Amino acid sequence: MKLLRVGPPGAERPVVQGQDGTAYELSGRARDIDGAFLAELDPQALARDVAAGLLPVADIAGQRVGAPVARPGKVVGIGLNYRDHAAEAGAPIPDEPVIFLKPSSTVVGPYDEVLVPRGGEKTDYEAELAIVIGRTARYLEDHRAAAGVIAGYTIANDVTERAFQFERGGQWDKGKSAETFTPLGPWLVTEDEVADPQRLSLRLWVNGELRQNGSTAEMIFPVLEIVRYASRFMVLEPGDVIVTGTPAGVTLGRPGTPFLAPGDIVEIEVDGLGRQRQVLGKA
Amino acid sequence: MKLLRVGPPGAERPVVQGQDGTAYELSGRARDIDGAFLAELDPQALARDVAAGLLPVADIAGQRVGAPVARPGKVVGIGLNYRDHAAEAGAPIPDEPVIFLKPSSTVVGPYDEVLVPRGGEKTDYEAELAIVIGRTARYLEDHRAAAGVIAGYTIANDVTERAFQFERGGQWDKGKSAETFTPLGPWLVTEDEVADPQRLSLRLWVNGELRQNGSTAEMIFPVLEIVRYASRFMVLEPGDVIVTGTPAGVTLGRPGTPFLAPGDIVEIEVDGLGRQRQVLGKA
Repeated sequence: MKLLRVGPPGAERPVVQGQDGTAYELSGRARDIDGAFLAELDPQALARDVAAGLLPVADIAGQRVGAPVARPGKVVGIGLNYRDHAAEAGAPIPDEPVIFLKPSSTVVGPYDEVLVPRGGEKTDYEAELAIVIGRTARYLEDHRAAAGVIAGYTIANDVTERAFQFERGGQWDKGKSAETFTPLGPWLVTEDEVADPQRLSLRLWVNGELRQNGSTAEMIFPVLEIVRYASRFMVLEPGDVIVTGTPAGVTLGRPGTPFLAPGDIVEIEVDGLGRQRQVLGKA
Repeated sequence: MKLLRVGPPGAERPVVQGQDGTAYELSGRARDIDGAFLAELDPQALARDVAAGLLPVADIAGQRVGAPVARPGKVVGIGLNYRDHAAEAGAPIPDEPVIFLKPSSTVVGPYDEVLVPRGGEKTDYEAELAIVIGRTARYLEDHRAAAGVIAGYTIANDVTERAFQFERGGQWDKGKSAETFTPLGPWLVTEDEVADPQRLSLRLWVNGELRQNGSTAEMIFPVLEIVRYASRFMVLEPGDVIVTGTPAGVTLGRPGTPFLAPGDIVEIEVDGLGRQRQVLGKA
């Protein structure tokens, strides 16, 4: 199933999209697409109800699309998870996942404006596969257990201000935390519809120029290892989001290429997960 | 006013404590002590209502005390904010605040058990003054503006696993994120009752032995500067918590002193903000 949230910021309503692209209202069944909903979600049962015509058709034409999951409890970031990106960043291949955090106040919809922060001079994009957690996870033992706590996947732009990340004390969070820095969506695609999360192409364009063109096959630590590993350092809860790292091609790795500026357009596509598009503005 | 939350984890109810120590039920006026409540809070008006006998007396004897604010949107950490602690950590005095994040899933009550994480060998305490945000804050210009967004103060134990913090990739969040790692409380003391947040003594004991004995007067970056500065890197929202750094005396700075182990008892006291007490357990 493809789940999405439509409506103004803070007042989105839940919608499910059928196989033929028709949207159906979920409001009668769920307050929102949040942790409580995801913890109870049975995608097959929901698909049957959609096919049986039990949900009202939703008219979502022209409406804003929000992030496909309500304000997450946390957004976990994985750093340097593609060899070619670690190389372009001048960093060694990590021995184990690098973990940072983004405040959930950074989350916006997939077509919302992204703001260059005040004082920012090196605002950069990062196309990423995002994992949405569906069950509470604590000290998972293996990949089989990790598979059992994933609700689904979506696209993230892990927007990063490089000067704040690297030149203001060394803890990355400072460059990962500005408002609008985590566009998510358009859909939460439930895990049963993603045949292999390690065989997804990611592409990112800036003003129509292809800048990133990678595949999750190139991840150093695959999705199940990321979830297993993270659960040993923190409790993962339903509705939490993990952004899994970006392949090569970010501005940081392209000396001479200007960083993002107001008016720029960033587009991201991931196989089966849809497409994002953000216009840059200024805080 | 002193605000607190009593009851089982996840089912706490809001209470206000009068000048004479009597507790009064706030449930009739607020669902919880959360961002929405704090954004509307007028401490003087609430104090008048308490004095006028408009709230029912609460019987809280023997009940668990939770964190004094409901699950925060984010917990922001400030690193190395006391000269003597930076020295004991072998770190230079920072030129500007060092910012890290803790997941809000780390927050527990002031008397709850703190768990040494699996694989943890260097679990350490950090007595801290915590700021609770009451108004949305974005690119604050000065300290006067910062003062206007603070709801109040409480005590935090910024529990940290040093091996995870320093020896597992370098991003501190990995050592700050385990379950139970942010005991908060017992009270949220509203800002009108804290005459000067830069003149508060902090004391921490392990098994009765005084380990930390500092004062917020020794902060490198004072409370108002922390709030102003943080608001320029992220949006602060009502209910968010900032833990402002710890003075000298942590285990990290006492070579030969064992780190925390199951059965240890940590107690923290901050002038006017009450006292915490945690027994260590094992995850």
